[in-house]
Amino acid sequence: MDIKPYKKDFGHSYTFGAFPTIEMLENKGKYAKEVIISYKLKDRATIDAVCQKQHIPVRENQKLIDKLNDKENVYILGVFDKYTCELAKDRPHIVLVNPGNMGNMGTIIRTAVGMGFKDIAIVRPGVDIFDPKTVRASMGALFRVNYKYYDDFEDYMHDFPEHQIYTFMLDADEKLEPLFKHGEPYSLVFGNESSGLPEKFHDYGTSIIIPQSTEVDSLNITIAAAVAMYVFNGNRL
Amino acid sequence: MDIKPYKKDFGHSYTFGAFPTIEMLENKGKYAKEVIISYKLKDRATIDAVCQKQHIPVRENQKLIDKLNDKENVYILGVFDKYTCELAKDRPHIVLVNPGNMGNMGTIIRTAVGMGFKDIAIVRPGVDIFDPKTVRASMGALFRVNYKYYDDFEDYMHDFPEHQIYTFMLDADEKLEPLFKHGEPYSLVFGNESSGLPEKFHDYGTSIIIPQSTEVDSLNITIAAAVAMYVFNGNRL
Repeated sequence: MDIKPYKKDFGHSYTFGAFPTIEMLENKGKYAKEVIISYKLKDRATIDAVCQKQHIPVRENQKLIDKLNDKENVYILGVFDKYTCELAKDRPHIVLVNPGNMGNMGTIIRTAVGMGFKDIAIVRPGVDIFDPKTVRASMGALFRVNYKYYDDFEDYMHDFPEHQIYTFMLDADEKLEPLFKHGEPYSLVFGNESSGLPEKFHDYGTSIIIPQSTEVDSLNITIAAAVAMYVFNGNRL
Repeated sequence: MDIKPYKKDFGHSYTFGAFPTIEMLENKGKYAKEVIISYKLKDRATIDAVCQKQHIPVRENQKLIDKLNDKENVYILGVFDKYTCELAKDRPHIVLVNPGNMGNMGTIIRTAVGMGFKDIAIVRPGVDIFDPKTVRASMGALFRVNYKYYDDFEDYMHDFPEHQIYTFMLDADEKLEPLFKHGEPYSLVFGNESSGLPEKFHDYGTSIIIPQSTEVDSLNITIAAAVAMYVFNGNRL
């Protein structure tokens, strides 16, 4: 396999670091291709054991790690084939409309898994869920969720007519109360980090604002999503 | 004034971008030294008006902006003298113990202001609150809070004997409930992003865990802090 710096149109992608690589091997092992390690890696035993269990080859190649990775101290690199998923009809969903930042998307996925969510819909245009930057920010939690891209929010709603839609907007109808009552199953819908959700999202379901001081313009999207996920599900864990 | 790339031991620091610069001028205008703009800035009227009101000089110098700034599309740069503050005795505090990442510290400050908190204690070693990276991540919310560094958490407690201490730890006594009952005034104490709070923090006040799925190692510190701040104060805004 010819391994080059990641591009969006590749059929494969990479995990950088021990934790995300092990998450990939243990949760999506059937898509793993190989693992590349640094001669600086002190303890090979853990990664060797995980790879052996999944029948994944391990080889040492410092030059390749340096070529693919722009951060320091990466000693383990995983190579995996991209895959597609279907979202569960009977579980709550997180819907990201036009996400523009890969770090934020990864952080939201990590938080979603932490708060008990397993299904992520993304409405295009949106950043690449398999970009190594997204994978890294998710700390490998990406490999524990189902994801699906949609060209349009209405296509998403068409696929999940039973889902109650909750849109998070600054000019919303309702305030997020600590014991907010909601229907099941449901979708929590978040907009782009700069521009939020377009005005027309007022027409879909219930719009909610997370209460905030007038001293800030808004909350960061990863923060708003986390508070919403805590209130809807996290506090029940 | 000789303007060079920021170093921690400088007596001054910088704001990059219109929003953080205006936050600095409007909230801490007496520490402002000057504002430097790019010839690419299309609308000078807003920044000129704010600077005129505060009697702060504005000059155009693209070369200087390029020298100090590593991101694209910065058209406004503010220069301000660093300052010290005292924390309010009668308000809740956020305490960051050994924060290691400037972006995270800025995000936590932005969230704190959004959730109605105005006082931030930092226990050393900790990153520099005036580093332009922290200022940028805070979106200028830094200029709306009081901050104070402490060498030791016990020195902090000595200064605020009335504050009820709540430490956020993974092996905690209590779970964060949506209507968590707490004393007043109080301090929410968060540890380093990698290592959390040292074991001895179990001896200070009440330790709390934010409920989370066993499928993640932990929540990102900015996420954990946001959920805690929402439950303690944000939901009352």
